[in-house]
Amino acid sequence: MKIGIVGIGLIGASLGWDFRQMGHHVIGVSRQHSTCTTAEREEICDRASCNLASLQDTEIIFICTPIAAIIPTIEQLIPHLHPDTIITDAGSVKEAIVDRSTELWANFVGGHPMAGNSQSGIAAFEKRLFADRPYVLTPTSKTSPIALERVAELVRSLNSILYYATPEQHDLAVAWISHLPIMVSASLISACLHEADPTILDFAKKFASTGFRDTSRVGGGNPEMGMMMAEYNREAILRSLYQYRDRLDTVIGSIETQAWTEIKDLLSTNQSVRNDFLDSKDV
Amino acid sequence: MKIGIVGIGLIGASLGWDFRQMGHHVIGVSRQHSTCTTAEREEICDRASCNLASLQDTEIIFICTPIAAIIPTIEQLIPHLHPDTIITDAGSVKEAIVDRSTELWANFVGGHPMAGNSQSGIAAFEKRLFADRPYVLTPTSKTSPIALERVAELVRSLNSILYYATPEQHDLAVAWISHLPIMVSASLISACLHEADPTILDFAKKFASTGFRDTSRVGGGNPEMGMMMAEYNREAILRSLYQYRDRLDTVIGSIETQAWTEIKDLLSTNQSVRNDFLDSKDV
Repeated sequence: MKIGIVGIGLIGASLGWDFRQMGHHVIGVSRQHSTCTTAEREEICDRASCNLASLQDTEIIFICTPIAAIIPTIEQLIPHLHPDTIITDAGSVKEAIVDRSTELWANFVGGHPMAGNSQSGIAAFEKRLFADRPYVLTPTSKTSPIALERVAELVRSLNSILYYATPEQHDLAVAWISHLPIMVSASLISACLHEADPTILDFAKKFASTGFRDTSRVGGGNPEMGMMMAEYNREAILRSLYQYRDRLDTVIGSIETQAWTEIKDLLSTNQSVRNDFLDSKDV
Repeated sequence: MKIGIVGIGLIGASLGWDFRQMGHHVIGVSRQHSTCTTAEREEICDRASCNLASLQDTEIIFICTPIAAIIPTIEQLIPHLHPDTIITDAGSVKEAIVDRSTELWANFVGGHPMAGNSQSGIAAFEKRLFADRPYVLTPTSKTSPIALERVAELVRSLNSILYYATPEQHDLAVAWISHLPIMVSASLISACLHEADPTILDFAKKFASTGFRDTSRVGGGNPEMGMMMAEYNREAILRSLYQYRDRLDTVIGSIETQAWTEIKDLLSTNQSVRNDFLDSKDV
């Protein structure tokens, strides 16, 4: 199959490598010429260029750009494509993307490969990055069943765990486990920095260990990406943040009233249910 | 030197092994006979028993019990000891321990070895656990300088990074980087569980990945320990929680008003300062 990839970063490059290994012909497009050179040299793409017109003969195109560039990319692609070309994307937010993209292109299928590492860019690409990881497809009533099945076949060939969700369900779910943690973690670092006594702040920095490291990790990550998630999944993340603030207030109330068994019960419940979020995935 | 250790869990056992390696004579006390047997077999202690009277000839005693047992242990030890015996502890909260312990025993020195792993108990012991890790001693105006220096010498011999802080400074600092993260993280798991739509909750569990795993880790840890920290460091943790709630409200406000550059600025600051909390420590 002839597969196009727009945006040859961590996700696009890892998809390209896997697809080429399976014998597909992969054509990549990047804004940066140096990325195209790397993509060809590292055998991530058969050909790569800065020109969207190079994708005119492809059967399926994966748009792996940052969220904000997905719809502009589709608009620029359209003049070059046969009407039966399938477009899918890899954006981490779906409702804001899928509705508009399906209006623009009948054969659009929303997707979200939920894999990654702490890096970004083509240099961070990983072979078999998507194996045993969730890959969510988000059809709507307007999605072409044939286009959906063709994307699903490719997803299965990556050995991903394929899920179907509506764009709304996807966005509400990732708000809980991906976007809310960023804001919770960002507020932790920010709170520490608001310590008014420089001696205490200095001790805090010196004493910080694995507990602080892990809880603060996603709040110290890519600023552009965190901002995009908040912007493009605003309603769902606010819904999660309001619930989070309620839970935090409950914890504060328990400590204020010295209701220690409430704190212990909360932590006991957490300890027993946390595995439900982690089981059966290699995380 | 003849060293006593009360409580042969992760910390006590790791101290025992290191001290024996240096040629000290280590006598352990545990409530559980089976722990004593293990401690002798694994060469963690030269001798171990359930009897506090066995420590009567020791020069320095490390109390490595849970926080709530530290002061009762000192009270039970006192009848057996020479007045020049030094007692130190390994509690993760200091103000509630140090004041009372110094009243009970003139040669008391508060301490907090800031090392550990995700396990507890004697089976989790590690050789050289304290090397290159912070070890805080918390003298007050009533602390004997001679006792303090003798404990400091032993701490240095572990290759720990030795810090001196007042009990208050210690408790305020660990509230930020150890106790606040537990409550922040616990509230995250709790908030997710309050999702009212079972389909969304199910997707959230299936989609959860490294971001959720890391941010939720300390909130899913030992419930007894989390409760103790809140109870024994109540004022400092509330102080940190109030500041945290203010920061969270600021984040929520920025998202509500679509002030995206505020979110980006917050995340950019976090990204650049987070290393100040992690640098130069193997975490």
